[in-house]
Amino acid sequence: MADPTSSEPATTPQRVAPERLEQFLTEVFQRLGAPPGRARRAAATLVLADRRGIGSHGAARLGFYVRRIENGTIDPRADLTVLRENPATLALDAHDGLGLALAPEAMDRCIAKAETAGVALCTVRNSSHFGIGAAYVLSAAERGFAALAMTNAGPLVAPLFGAEARLGTNPIAFAAPVGPDEPPLVLDMATSAVAFGKIELARRANSAIPPGWAIDAAGAPTTDPFAARSLAPLGGDTAGGGHKGYGLAVMVDMLCGPLAGALWGTQVASLQTVEARSGIGHVFFVWRIDAFRDPVAFAADARALLAALRATPPAPGHEASGVLVPGDPERAAERERRARGIPFPASVIGELRALGERLGVPFELDG
Amino acid sequence: MADPTSSEPATTPQRVAPERLEQFLTEVFQRLGAPPGRARRAAATLVLADRRGIGSHGAARLGFYVRRIENGTIDPRADLTVLRENPATLALDAHDGLGLALAPEAMDRCIAKAETAGVALCTVRNSSHFGIGAAYVLSAAERGFAALAMTNAGPLVAPLFGAEARLGTNPIAFAAPVGPDEPPLVLDMATSAVAFGKIELARRANSAIPPGWAIDAAGAPTTDPFAARSLAPLGGDTAGGGHKGYGLAVMVDMLCGPLAGALWGTQVASLQTVEARSGIGHVFFVWRIDAFRDPVAFAADARALLAALRATPPAPGHEASGVLVPGDPERAAERERRARGIPFPASVIGELRALGERLGVPFELDG
Repeated sequence: MADPTSSEPATTPQRVAPERLEQFLTEVFQRLGAPPGRARRAAATLVLADRRGIGSHGAARLGFYVRRIENGTIDPRADLTVLRENPATLALDAHDGLGLALAPEAMDRCIAKAETAGVALCTVRNSSHFGIGAAYVLSAAERGFAALAMTNAGPLVAPLFGAEARLGTNPIAFAAPVGPDEPPLVLDMATSAVAFGKIELARRANSAIPPGWAIDAAGAPTTDPFAARSLAPLGGDTAGGGHKGYGLAVMVDMLCGPLAGALWGTQVASLQTVEARSGIGHVFFVWRIDAFRDPVAFAADARALLAALRATPPAPGHEASGVLVPGDPERAAERERRARGIPFPASVIGELRALGERLGVPFELDG
Repeated sequence: MADPTSSEPATTPQRVAPERLEQFLTEVFQRLGAPPGRARRAAATLVLADRRGIGSHGAARLGFYVRRIENGTIDPRADLTVLRENPATLALDAHDGLGLALAPEAMDRCIAKAETAGVALCTVRNSSHFGIGAAYVLSAAERGFAALAMTNAGPLVAPLFGAEARLGTNPIAFAAPVGPDEPPLVLDMATSAVAFGKIELARRANSAIPPGWAIDAAGAPTTDPFAARSLAPLGGDTAGGGHKGYGLAVMVDMLCGPLAGALWGTQVASLQTVEARSGIGHVFFVWRIDAFRDPVAFAADARALLAALRATPPAPGHEASGVLVPGDPERAAERERRARGIPFPASVIGELRALGERLGVPFELDG
């Protein structure tokens, strides 16, 4: 997603306790008209991103939501309605509501269906930015289900061979429970080579970007972050398998757009466009482990698989880290932030304080 | 998948009519003990790969199956049995049978469940190489369903930061119907940067491989095809998003291995290992379009999305091809091969002839 902020603060960050941040965000969403439960849910979705070290999708984006609620392009009072339903499927309409809160409700309903039917698939249309995909698949995996979540997003990514952005970073998230004493395995990835936030970081640092990240206004590959206009798909160019990242992005757009009945491709407004409704869609798949296998046996094999990956001899230069498994960096961030609080750059703290003051919500995060 | 053959013949290829090839392959599988319907199904799966230009997964691999059937690691008489079942889910055991024929049967059962339940999820354990993933999702999309198919495979791909292969090329295939007068949208991609066959091609051409494709025996990135030992995941290194391709490969292995109750990671024998049973697993998801949206409206939007992608201004150097959509090269191959026959290098024709002669199956492909 377009990401004017960064999870890597340039100055010494200020640490904020997750609970206090969540309370502040809840009050902001309530002040803007969200019912209390929904406000808390939206806040929790943002804070989860910050707890997991995905600063681009956390409280730093509060202003994005506030502006859209204030100008009416997000309706914090909108409810989910059912378009089509059967025991294992559900097509929902979010009516331009708060994706941060309605998408978790949709995932809850999908989980309830999977509980009964063994597997469930749910689409959501007319939604808005739903935060991190990990939030959704984690909520399923923490209840013992495996899950996939996808969303489309405003155009930032050029098709392979194309000169202009036509697709969002269209992320795919997956999680599976791997046992009672282990956090779930979580994969949460954009289908682009990188997030646009990494281009922004390079601009601030005035440093070149690696080949394969972006193309310029003419569609030519560039290593100049200031010339970068569109992101490359995962894989970059043809040699790197860019047709695969492009294909995944098309799949996500096809399911979250045409299948859900939501906007797709360039119909979706850029994150920078405050005036237009979002209109994006999401897709959730959830399934019971025990529909296929004894969950204890599955978890034992899953842990053995992860252990075998971690035990891979490291490549030269990676002896210190060793081989990680998907979600390891986020789990490390969660541990560290639980103990020490969430670090925010002074600029984000300043923006949150200003928002709180303007809305009359006590800002007591830096006390 | 490990791919000692290539879809790009070095000498003038011989053209073979798909129907004659399918008949020959059917007779070979029957001669080896497969029941007639199953033999025809396995043959059709191989020929579909050749028709779509994926020569590495077609008739050129017949010897691979013949050797395994002859040494008992694939049982051409094995049937699918049901391990767990409910109206929307199905866990199957292929009993070391012929994946080329049993996996299509599993997909048929999954489609039948989705017909009733709206969505269905099916796992298969103790299977063997199932050909191209596109075969499965296409069979669903041609009947009006959207589908995902995954399989795990013998280790060829190193985890990011790892020095040795721990995962297969673990492909993901997706298809959706986009209208009565258009072929379905099909994505079929390995989660590795490239197929090993591309390394083999570079060896034969004695040319360097691009950075990001492979690592050497010490785990260091290499551009020397003779030094290449393991493939890199899609994305290549950290800068290219290699953690994403790695994560997708782990997801596929988690579902096809631990969830299906099949082998996973290095438990799976390499394709070069004739002596060991395969033991891999597959996963199929199928869903009805009309569980979520009017299929006509979906197809119209889907076609508009694809048309918008094709209409993207081309990047410099890509004016001639323009922007493609997933599956375009395979569709072009199908058109060309339907008209002119499937091209095979003389080496493959020679191998097929030798197999036919040894098994007493008339070889009349080059007449």
